[in-house]
Amino acid sequence: MRLGVMANRPVLVDGDTAIDIERASGGRFPADPARIFDSWDALVDWAATYEHGGERLPLDQLQNPVPAPRQVFGIGANYLDHVAEAAARHGAQGDALPTGAQHDTPLVFTKFRSSLSGPYDAIPLPSRNVDWEVELVVVMGRRAERVSEQQAWRHVAGLTVGQDISERVLQLAGAAPQFSMGKSFPGFGPMGPVLVTPDELDDPDDLELGCSVNGRLMQKGRTGGMVFTVAELVARISAACPLLPGDVIFTGTPAGVGAFREPPLFLKPGDTLVSWVTGIGELRNPVTAGPGHPDGTGQEGEQP
Amino acid sequence: MRLGVMANRPVLVDGDTAIDIERASGGRFPADPARIFDSWDALVDWAATYEHGGERLPLDQLQNPVPAPRQVFGIGANYLDHVAEAAARHGAQGDALPTGAQHDTPLVFTKFRSSLSGPYDAIPLPSRNVDWEVELVVVMGRRAERVSEQQAWRHVAGLTVGQDISERVLQLAGAAPQFSMGKSFPGFGPMGPVLVTPDELDDPDDLELGCSVNGRLMQKGRTGGMVFTVAELVARISAACPLLPGDVIFTGTPAGVGAFREPPLFLKPGDTLVSWVTGIGELRNPVTAGPGHPDGTGQEGEQP
Repeated sequence: MRLGVMANRPVLVDGDTAIDIERASGGRFPADPARIFDSWDALVDWAATYEHGGERLPLDQLQNPVPAPRQVFGIGANYLDHVAEAAARHGAQGDALPTGAQHDTPLVFTKFRSSLSGPYDAIPLPSRNVDWEVELVVVMGRRAERVSEQQAWRHVAGLTVGQDISERVLQLAGAAPQFSMGKSFPGFGPMGPVLVTPDELDDPDDLELGCSVNGRLMQKGRTGGMVFTVAELVARISAACPLLPGDVIFTGTPAGVGAFREPPLFLKPGDTLVSWVTGIGELRNPVTAGPGHPDGTGQEGEQP
Repeated sequence: MRLGVMANRPVLVDGDTAIDIERASGGRFPADPARIFDSWDALVDWAATYEHGGERLPLDQLQNPVPAPRQVFGIGANYLDHVAEAAARHGAQGDALPTGAQHDTPLVFTKFRSSLSGPYDAIPLPSRNVDWEVELVVVMGRRAERVSEQQAWRHVAGLTVGQDISERVLQLAGAAPQFSMGKSFPGFGPMGPVLVTPDELDDPDDLELGCSVNGRLMQKGRTGGMVFTVAELVARISAACPLLPGDVIFTGTPAGVGAFREPPLFLKPGDTLVSWVTGIGELRNPVTAGPGHPDGTGQEGEQP
């Protein structure tokens, strides 16, 4: 099953058509995408038996399939090649990232929810120090509290593609390394284009992911290279903090981010960032000058 | 105005009585405490002119006045005396806290929302390494995006008392210092007992706060000692990340936490933690053995 959001309503995506879930189910499932995960198991059952003979909508602009999670988890340093590239730049900026010596506990932060955006939304740059982190994103379908690794996948609704866009100066500013602020500007969390249930994927634990800027390949990796697997992340997070239906986990990024290149490479207005996970889909985000950017035409004043 | 939540409904608290906001307003304001901040300005205006002649309820068990914020911000290292006590224990655990040398940017993390709890709720301990951090908590009443320090207070709904309960081993575990996980066990975010609007306080920028364990004073400070004031925090956070109505900011803790004492002191089952901000009110939280605690009688198995 492939879940999308179109015109702010949850849809089943089938090829190049979509089925409005609330209408096709006769109101059994909500028209509010924020509430769809509260009856996830029933939705999956219904979708599996639904005859698909009803109204088909042409596939229009898809939005973030999970627009209002109660909790957003981000994982740092979850691919060793990314840890290594950060360590190589240690003198410049690597303090915020580990050397890999103590990989017994996932490094957990948040992307504040107001940063989440859709698969084709603009990324407004606040500065010249912003780059990319393509990530597999896990979406929870059931409350998970102290679940074992073996039971973890049963609590997952599905997977989607995410970008953990990062402003590297703010990320490393302050009294101690911090991840959340620099990764939470508006538009810094593109997600989508659809949520795919694990049964649709040959091996949900080993997916290829990557991203390009203006057609130049920047990152390419496999989720099989994650230090903590999806099941381990769900188990380890839920050991402390209950995961709620609709919660999302950005699972970390492989090597190839801009900040750790030699010389560093950052996004600039006019760029196009394309990000994908094979078997799920592709984000395509235009980059613009946002408020605060030196080239900015963005609104600098306060909003009401 | 003093806002509370009683029987899962928003109430005005007036002495030892309460007024049900939805009923007294004839349905103008919602019965769902999660939605009350979306019409905050109108609520304040209504409460100011409400005749208070209607039904009065006896003040019963108050719950968390802000049970479902979309975003929860935590601030680290915001009192110099706390920074100093952390630095003094540097060899043992201080790596996660700064030395105060780079206080140009607030240190921002999150407490995941499932950790928030009420003013009289139990604190279930997962280990023997849990202690206290009494904090002033700011609640937003209006969306704030790139607001100036001068305009910041206009976006604040009010203030309440919070405890940023912390599991110190998990807080310092992992590949890099992290704050969010160790502070997000269930019951680790008592808040309340009421939200007080700033006009009710002589000086909302200089309030006394403190906490005691079993009657022994552990922390005592003044919010006037914060490195970043309330207005500065709202301005600095909103420069990156829009603050939404009902969002909460835990503003940091003064000296006197347990982990940095000599010898360290931690909470144990049977303790009572009392936390207060003068002019706002008092939290009173019993401490219990939770799942995972060595003395635990808590449910160890998985929940469905």
